[in-house]
This record gives sequence, C-alpha cells and structure tokens, in this order.
Amino acid sequence: MGPHPAVAAIRLAVRRVLNDILAEHGRTPGRLSPDERSSSPLVLVACSGGADSMALASALAFEAPRAGLRAGGVTVDHGLQAGSALRAAEVASRLRELGLDPVESVAVTVGRDGGPEAAARDARYAALDTAAERHRAAAVLLGHTRDDQAETVLLGLARGSGIRSLSGMAAVSGADGRYRRPFLQLDRQTARKACMVQSLPVWDDPHNTDPAYTRSRLRHEGLPALEKALGKGVVEALARTAQLSRDDADALDAWAGKAAAGVRDADGRLECAALGDLPPAVRRRVLRRAAIEAGAPAGSLFARHIEEVDRLITGWRGQGAINLPGRVVARRQGGRLVIRQG
Amino acid sequence: MGPHPAVAAIRLAVRRVLNDILAEHGRTPGRLSPDERSSSPLVLVACSGGADSMALASALAFEAPRAGLRAGGVTVDHGLQAGSALRAAEVASRLRELGLDPVESVAVTVGRDGGPEAAARDARYAALDTAAERHRAAAVLLGHTRDDQAETVLLGLARGSGIRSLSGMAAVSGADGRYRRPFLQLDRQTARKACMVQSLPVWDDPHNTDPAYTRSRLRHEGLPALEKALGKGVVEALARTAQLSRDDADALDAWAGKAAAGVRDADGRLECAALGDLPPAVRRRVLRRAAIEAGAPAGSLFARHIEEVDRLITGWRGQGAINLPGRVVARRQGGRLVIRQG
Repeated sequence: MGPHPAVAAIRLAVRRVLNDILAEHGRTPGRLSPDERSSSPLVLVACSGGADSMALASALAFEAPRAGLRAGGVTVDHGLQAGSALRAAEVASRLRELGLDPVESVAVTVGRDGGPEAAARDARYAALDTAAERHRAAAVLLGHTRDDQAETVLLGLARGSGIRSLSGMAAVSGADGRYRRPFLQLDRQTARKACMVQSLPVWDDPHNTDPAYTRSRLRHEGLPALEKALGKGVVEALARTAQLSRDDADALDAWAGKAAAGVRDADGRLECAALGDLPPAVRRRVLRRAAIEAGAPAGSLFARHIEEVDRLITGWRGQGAINLPGRVVARRQGGRLVIRQG
Repeated sequence: MGPHPAVAAIRLAVRRVLNDILAEHGRTPGRLSPDERSSSPLVLVACSGGADSMALASALAFEAPRAGLRAGGVTVDHGLQAGSALRAAEVASRLRELGLDPVESVAVTVGRDGGPEAAARDARYAALDTAAERHRAAAVLLGHTRDDQAETVLLGLARGSGIRSLSGMAAVSGADGRYRRPFLQLDRQTARKACMVQSLPVWDDPHNTDPAYTRSRLRHEGLPALEKALGKGVVEALARTAQLSRDDADALDAWAGKAAAGVRDADGRLECAALGDLPPAVRRRVLRRAAIEAGAPAGSLFARHIEEVDRLITGWRGQGAINLPGRVVARRQGGRLVIRQG
C-alpha cells in the first residue's frame, strides 16, 4: 500500500525540486554510501512549525536520502511572542526527530521598517541567508502554498502598480536561486492533511488569525468572500495569474532593457521622439528604469509618478519639472528628457 | 456659483470625450447655428435609467450643444422583468425631457448563450450597434464607472487566463471606436450624487442586487470584503491594474504578431527551435494565435491548453498529439509543430 495521497503529493512536489537541484549540480538521483553522502549537496528547509513547513520538512526528510542529498532545517525565532524561544527549540527538536541534520534555531530581532509583516519577513530572510551561507547549503526550501500565492497576488493587486506586483512569489528566487518553493502549486489543505496522517504535531501561529494583519484578514475574510462571489476556482485562478503575469513582466522588462539603449542620443540623453514611438507599456518601463538609475528608490516609485513623467512625452504642453522620490527630477529640455537628482 | 462638484465632474468627463470625437471629425468645440447643427455629428447615450447612465445622459445633454454636437439616446428593453416595456418608455421620455433628440426605446429578445449576464449583454450591444448605424451616430456613450471596471477586473481574475482578461473595459471600443466610456475613471457614488442634486429620478435595476448574478455578488459582498481586508483604495487599484494590463497585453500581442512570422519555415510551418528561443510569454501568444488561426474558438481556448502545447516545445519527451477545442490538434513532427483541424 502506498502512502496517503496527501503525503504522496507533498513528496512528489519536493522530489521534483530536488531533481532540479541535482541536475544543476551535475548529479543524478540515487542513494549514496555514507562516505559519498558527507560531500553531497545540503538542502535546508525553513520551518516555522506550522503545517505547511512541517509537511515540507517531512517530505524533505523522506526524499533527500533517496535522491542522494543531505537535508537540514532552520527555524527562526522572531521573538515577537512570549515563549517563542521555547517553541523554536521544540520545532528544532521535531526537525531532528525527522532525521534532518544539521538543524538550528536562529533568534532574530525584528525591526519596524515597512510595517510589522515586512519587518518580520526581512529579518527572517536575512537569518536564512546567513544560515544558508554558513552551511554552504545548495538550496533553502520554503513552504509557501498555492493559497499563500493567491493571497500575495491580491496584496499586489491592491497596490495597483501593474503586472509585476501580480506575479506573486517565484518558484525559484534569491541569490543564485537559493530559495525554492516546492508547494507553490499545492493547496494548504493538502499540506495540513499530510501532517495529520503522518501524526506530525503542528503549531498554528496566532498571527495567522489576527485581524490586525492584512494577510490574515485577506485569508479569513477577503478570499472566502471572493470565493463565495466568484466560485471555488479563485485560488487556482490567482495562482495561474501569478505565473502568467511573471512571464509577461519578464518579457516586457527584457524588451525595455533593449529599447532603453535605442532611445538615447550620442550623449546618452533620452530622446522624446524615440520614446514616443515605443508602445506605452515599454516606454513606461524605460522611464521607470531611468528614474531608478537616477537615484529614485524603486519601492517609492509608483505608477502615477511614471504616468506624470510619461505625459512629458505624450502630452507635452510646456509643463514644468516633475518631482520624483529620492530628490529625482524629470524635465523636458527641447527634444530631450532629462532625469536626474538635485 | 458653479455647479455641484459631482455635476462638474460628470460634465468634465463627458466634455473630454466629446472633444476627442470632435477632433476625430476635424472639428473644434463651439455652439452652432440651427442650420449648422442639423449636419453636425450625433452622439448617442445608452441609458438604462440607472444612476450611472442617467448622469451620463444629463451631462451629454448639457455639453453636446456647447460642443457643437447633436445628442440622442437609446434605451434597451431586455424584456426580462414584468413591466420592462413601460419602464423603457419612461426612460425614453426622461431622455427627451433632458433635450436629447432622437430618443428611442428598443426591445430585444435575450437568448441563453453564455449565461444570463452574457446573453443580455450580447442582445444589448447588438441593439445599440443597430441603433448607431440607423442614426449614423459618431459614437455611443456608455455609463460604466470605475466601480464597474474594478468588478470586471475581478471577474477576469477569476478566469485566471492572463493579463488580457485583467484589462477590463476599454475607454474606446467597438467598430471604429464607436463605444466610449467617459466615466471609467469616475466613481459610482459621484454619478449617483450628480443625479440627486439635479433631481433626476433613477431606477435601480433589481438584477444589480440579485445574488443569483455573479457581478451582483461581487459588488455587494466580494468587493466590500476585499476593501475591508486591503483598504479603501482597492477599487482605484483595480482600475489602474486594468489600464496597465491593457497596455502590457497590447505590447505583447504586437511582439507576438511580429515574432509569428519569424518562427516559420519556408513552407509556413512552425519551427520548434525558433519557438524555443522566444520568451515564454511571447511563445505562448504565438501558439495561441496559431491555434485560433487553425480554427480553435478563442473563447474556449484556455491557458492550460496553450501550456500543454507549449510543453511540446519546452518539455519534449515524445508525447502524443494535443487535442484543442474546435477539433484542432497540435502535434510535433520532427522539428516542426503542426497545428490543424481534423
């Protein structure tokens, strides 16, 4: 008798990613002798102790030896709740019980930049980066599911800043493609079920149900209401939108990258006529790129800023300089567009 | 004392569109003598009697004579509710009271294709097309607001079929750009307010609050829940997403159109190697276009169909022919991709 379908699903998802990692290291899957193992690539799992990442850890512990890879785990203690250190130690001991090695618990200090959710995320990734480098890990697996992806797309939609913000989380991201998300096509329910049938204890982070957090409100109120209005396929549709938007955004960024060179004069200044000939979608990306190169912080540069700069090209009626974030100023001078700091 | 801000807002929105129409006809705005008027272009408003289109009709009645345009109105009796003929006659008489001329009420028979909302829409546009042609109208104004646009984006999102379905309604659409949507950047509340302060009676279609309709559920439950989770800017963000997605989709379609010629051999067959070199977003559009040219109905061709065909290029492992809607079959033959009916 094979494993429960939920367990089969999480293992298959992890197996695929491990095979990718092996291929990138010029290896083929297969068990190794203890001697060979010690030099095989290490894959870490980032585990909060919640159902998604516990399921991921269990699947990694099962699949890694069969693939000829070493498997370890990291849990991050954000220090935001009473008893968080104790809980992190518990998660670490559960990871060891699964057979992962090395396992470590890392305590971080969460700042305030960008709000509580962003600050916690920044601290977490910094700790994971450090752990990955210390252990020379080939990859770090993250337990984000299709449901997380759908929430991320809606959060991006609320920014209204275009298709890049609809593209959610990448299956592969970070320095050298360090981070991998094997569960991005898997639903949260499957991960939880896999924990249940494997009798894995899971920890439900109270933040996940705290309505003070945008993502929590989205998960427990926004998305269910959308599903009620639009039907059960919404989560899948949002996840598919993420993938399609990512590919579209990549293609348009590549186009803008090529176009940027062709719209400059011999002195490297942007020519308004040449910009005007580009499709609006490409032109706005060229302008955004130029503003960032001039020193505007990408995170503060919104669609409305770029629209205003764009009107210097498409709706020229002698308007004055446009102030952009980071003390960057865009102005039209004759047939040239000048974007610079100061 | 000027008009109420809501009235000023609806008039400004209509004035901008009328100026576009004048410019397209090589005219400049300005009052005309009665003789000149009879030969000036006619702009129709499509009016259900609801707040959005009554506000639009009132603004058109005010602005058209000042711009030197004739203004008329059409109301469509869908015959779906008891007393709909009487109501249509009432709306027509209100349009005449606003000074619109010609005004007509058109009765249509709503079919069943594509569900009740799509069938009613198809019948309505067919009637508006006929009316526009009969009166040789230069344009037909539609009362869709920013809120309608936000709902349309969410409906597109639920299809999960990519950024074209996120691009909502166009400000200009239909044959020769016949349809214009002056209120696409204006919120529903402003239109309603403009009716109130002008003492215009409005009719609230019970369909708009009937939870049997997807759009109605979205309007009264889905969007408010999203706003509660994500904040009040959601409608604006969705409308901005529509515009950005439309421009992006246009640019990528143009790219795919150009690329389609470059990936065919001397006999016009698609070359797999050349397809493989395209960015995924462009390649999928080329494949979609080829499937439609081979006879697959666009409306039945989903992202998952194209993904499967794409795997003949990017994940070739000898798989068999892929069946697409409209009895179209895609298969790989040597280094060529053959997509045809039969």
